[in-house]
Amino acid sequence: MKIVCSKSNLVKGVNIVSKAVPSKTTMPILECILIDANMDVIKLTSNDMELGIQTEIEGEIIKHGMIAIDAKIFSEIVRKLPDNDVIIETDENLQTTITCEKAKFNISGKSGEDFAYLPIIEKNETIVVSQFTLKEVIRQTIFSIADNESNKLMTGELFEIHDNILRVVSLDGHRLSIRKIELKQQYSDKKIVVPGKTLMEVSKILSGEAESEVCMYFTNNHIVFEFDRTVVVSRLIEGEYFKIDQMLSNDYETKVKINKKELLNCIDRATLLVKEGDKKPIIINIGDEIMELKIKSQLGSMNEDIVINKEGKDLMIGFNPKFLIDALRVIDDEEVDLYLMNAKAPCFIKDEDENYIYLILPVNFNAI
Amino acid sequence: MKIVCSKSNLVKGVNIVSKAVPSKTTMPILECILIDANMDVIKLTSNDMELGIQTEIEGEIIKHGMIAIDAKIFSEIVRKLPDNDVIIETDENLQTTITCEKAKFNISGKSGEDFAYLPIIEKNETIVVSQFTLKEVIRQTIFSIADNESNKLMTGELFEIHDNILRVVSLDGHRLSIRKIELKQQYSDKKIVVPGKTLMEVSKILSGEAESEVCMYFTNNHIVFEFDRTVVVSRLIEGEYFKIDQMLSNDYETKVKINKKELLNCIDRATLLVKEGDKKPIIINIGDEIMELKIKSQLGSMNEDIVINKEGKDLMIGFNPKFLIDALRVIDDEEVDLYLMNAKAPCFIKDEDENYIYLILPVNFNAI
Repeated sequence: MKIVCSKSNLVKGVNIVSKAVPSKTTMPILECILIDANMDVIKLTSNDMELGIQTEIEGEIIKHGMIAIDAKIFSEIVRKLPDNDVIIETDENLQTTITCEKAKFNISGKSGEDFAYLPIIEKNETIVVSQFTLKEVIRQTIFSIADNESNKLMTGELFEIHDNILRVVSLDGHRLSIRKIELKQQYSDKKIVVPGKTLMEVSKILSGEAESEVCMYFTNNHIVFEFDRTVVVSRLIEGEYFKIDQMLSNDYETKVKINKKELLNCIDRATLLVKEGDKKPIIINIGDEIMELKIKSQLGSMNEDIVINKEGKDLMIGFNPKFLIDALRVIDDEEVDLYLMNAKAPCFIKDEDENYIYLILPVNFNAI
Repeated sequence: MKIVCSKSNLVKGVNIVSKAVPSKTTMPILECILIDANMDVIKLTSNDMELGIQTEIEGEIIKHGMIAIDAKIFSEIVRKLPDNDVIIETDENLQTTITCEKAKFNISGKSGEDFAYLPIIEKNETIVVSQFTLKEVIRQTIFSIADNESNKLMTGELFEIHDNILRVVSLDGHRLSIRKIELKQQYSDKKIVVPGKTLMEVSKILSGEAESEVCMYFTNNHIVFEFDRTVVVSRLIEGEYFKIDQMLSNDYETKVKINKKELLNCIDRATLLVKEGDKKPIIINIGDEIMELKIKSQLGSMNEDIVINKEGKDLMIGFNPKFLIDALRVIDDEEVDLYLMNAKAPCFIKDEDENYIYLILPVNFNAI
């Protein structure tokens, strides 16, 4: 194999596929990036058997062939090369020479034949959203997946399509996040659970431009994302997702309209007094026009008043401050509405059209 | 005690004194910052018994007094307060209230009486340099102190004054760095060894402006740095420093003039192939007009040619690439001169006036 491409194209491609290179594995071939120049285009591929990424890079193929190269060393070399054309050449012993200007690297490759290619997925109905939308939706829901594997379904996100609505849901047993997106056309009903890791990596690769599109295909076992010149294939999480609609309710006894930034900054300050692992709640005391926030720990105490617009009853309720912070951070609105029932019932933060819904369970507290 | 000062002044002061707060100590009082408003000015002080820092902050004293507050929690609180006036008030039980707008923190303080004040140092001859110069000189020498304590003197830097010249020296057994500065006046001869940690912290606090000055005083046991409204007092390292001048030589058999950035980038690329802890040398082959750099490790090999201007003999010599990188990184010249004798003798990188001298010992190698 012999190819020539610019350093910048190579870096871009390597950065994309590196997202699916496992950091630990018992199969050394998985730690490699496959450079495939067997056809008329140069393709880079990585695959950790759950998640696979393939991207095409601009360049010239002088001699067809392919080679698998250790991803870590290859990406480090490529990144530090001068900003010029890079020649990658392999010999029959899989020795790979990377030349750029007067710098010449020589490293051992592995046979491309041993590499685990991406599964071939039958492309049925294509769901199209903008890169901006998908990136935003992931950011606005990913924080409330569970990070331990004790319940596999909680480590993923539900993608549910009904008519022309895509609903993305994540939950971890203490909170629930829902984002609703209107699609440009009607689709048949679908319900799949995508691994959280896949979504995080996809989100890092997405340019986030509103003008660029992502095409998604689902099968029973896989989801495929196609955008720019990149294909991401991921396994799905098997099993039936939780019954979300039973957890939602439109009833409330207290409604609070509040400046989002003020509330976020206040909770952020309060959490200074809470050391990691310490489960001190923030106590919210909702009165007329004023909401008082209090926290108390071994380190000291803090309280602050925030001006609010209230409908309904007064209420005192406690929360894990981190859960409020996580939700408030991803909401782009200047003002948010909190809907509460009583000190034992969940709090809903949602907009009028329910484009976003954040449900947070309260915690017990001893009134300070 | 009751004081009022702006959040920004408080943050600035806390950031400065935090540099001398020990991360681990058996004496909890040392983990505190002392706020001293007993006189007409608000002073913040920290002291880890080796290094002590005091800085004055702008503000109003409503009631005289002092308090010692845990540095970590205090600096976190202060940093997250709204950008407005901050009131700090203590009661007779050392309870401290920090109020800013509607946010109110309550934490326990410690008695200021228990705090270890800075030693009082007799101020004799004042050595004056610009903040810019001191910051630069530290940056250009600090990397070659030894980081283990087996030879205490190597963990510090020699400050040597003779006539109107300040010479700053560091060495770790494999290399030696010297920076020479011309002072504005003559001083009596002095020779002290300043702890590397002190210099690193001082360098972080220095604004680095060429117009601002630093005054330095030495005693037998201490060095004092005074600048802006800050005083840094540090113990010195005891003992006689190494005889530097015996290590220096002006003889050479080979002189190489080379573009600094090209050489640095090349060595930087080569070190990709060297894993941490692995002691692979970079081999430099000096010929007419061309210098070849080679490195070989388990990961692969790399070689690159650089155009040079050579006087004297051809030479092949090996170095620890890190030592070359460290020295080249801090040299501001576009071109550097390397002076070499043979494959066993040290290499000198220095400018014509010897404002800087970097001595690097070569390493054995097997020609690749």
